[in-house]
Amino acid sequence: MDRHFFEELDSLKKELLNMGSLVEEMVGIAVKALVEHDADLLETIRQNEARVNRLQVDIDEYCLKLIALHQPTASDLRFLLGISKINAELERVGDHAANICKGISVILEKEQIKPFIDMPQMVDIVGSMFRESLHAFVNLDVDKARTILLRDDQVDQLRYKIIQELVDLMKKDPGTVETAVCLILTANSFEKIADHATNIAEVVIFVAQGKDVRHHFEDPLL
Amino acid sequence: MDRHFFEELDSLKKELLNMGSLVEEMVGIAVKALVEHDADLLETIRQNEARVNRLQVDIDEYCLKLIALHQPTASDLRFLLGISKINAELERVGDHAANICKGISVILEKEQIKPFIDMPQMVDIVGSMFRESLHAFVNLDVDKARTILLRDDQVDQLRYKIIQELVDLMKKDPGTVETAVCLILTANSFEKIADHATNIAEVVIFVAQGKDVRHHFEDPLL
Repeated sequence: MDRHFFEELDSLKKELLNMGSLVEEMVGIAVKALVEHDADLLETIRQNEARVNRLQVDIDEYCLKLIALHQPTASDLRFLLGISKINAELERVGDHAANICKGISVILEKEQIKPFIDMPQMVDIVGSMFRESLHAFVNLDVDKARTILLRDDQVDQLRYKIIQELVDLMKKDPGTVETAVCLILTANSFEKIADHATNIAEVVIFVAQGKDVRHHFEDPLL
Repeated sequence: MDRHFFEELDSLKKELLNMGSLVEEMVGIAVKALVEHDADLLETIRQNEARVNRLQVDIDEYCLKLIALHQPTASDLRFLLGISKINAELERVGDHAANICKGISVILEKEQIKPFIDMPQMVDIVGSMFRESLHAFVNLDVDKARTILLRDDQVDQLRYKIIQELVDLMKKDPGTVETAVCLILTANSFEKIADHATNIAEVVIFVAQGKDVRHHFEDPLL
């Protein structure tokens, strides 16, 4: 491969990281949205969403162009296909973050949402899983990617507990139904963000080692 | 490109359609799960899920191999990247179908779920969107793909109405909370299946015409 190709790969990687930063900001706003209603943050979400959508299309086009022009094989091809996959994951994380903010902002206009014990813990884990999945990609850090895979079950369990708590609350006090349903959908969206972080971590392992660890056909601990 | 390459492409396409049939069966079972509890169907879901996961890994590996070996350009490369994308969408549709069945089966063991006016309508639209997205891919039928894109908003609106109905129901009768939350999560999962069908339709247009219609940068009506 010529020098020009590696410069192009580098430029593509930067574009993906630019998209990653925008989505990371959106996830951060979604976390904040749970405790404060801020119209400015909603405006930032909208702007980022538009930029992320544009970047998704550009990055896919760039990947296709580089594969067609330079016909890479082995690790370079894996890298390009990996970028295309992470690109799709990032756009969906951005979607979930935007949905969380829009859903919560409607409720916050009406009433104060009380923080529940497990929700902040779950949100905290999901936020760090997502940030670390991006770091793992930047450094093609397989060890970090594997630690992310191990945390997905914890998020699933917390989501289940949160839903149970909210179901009990609604049974006791029908006045909480609207807020509780909004929080259930929020917990669901955060759990999906954790799924996407896991998918990104799996792509990192695939790009770095050529191993497909999805669905545990290869034990992620090995 | 040599004849061998086209035979390989055909064989890859068949593998994807095999996966599509398994996932279509899963979606059909998820639809049925809303009205009947059937342990046999749950067992079929589990078996299909395992086969779908295996196929996802195999198909991605096959795509990578064909790109590396045959270094296709233009429409053949778009076709291979399109298959890789549809592969990911199908696996997620299967996941949602499995989650719907598992969630509903717990509730159905306890009580009869009443069909709600908008739920069967939504489920019906989603099921046909998904089936038609596969048909659109088989025939690279751009017109059919574009009609799928136009139905996504209708599903979003039905989902919103269903959630509102269920919120009202829970407020009136706290005894319905568990069932209603399960149905809200079910409606959410069906709406996600519609999103994936839309994504598949967008891939079909991209493969057939080289146009990226995601996020409406290109008007899908044109």
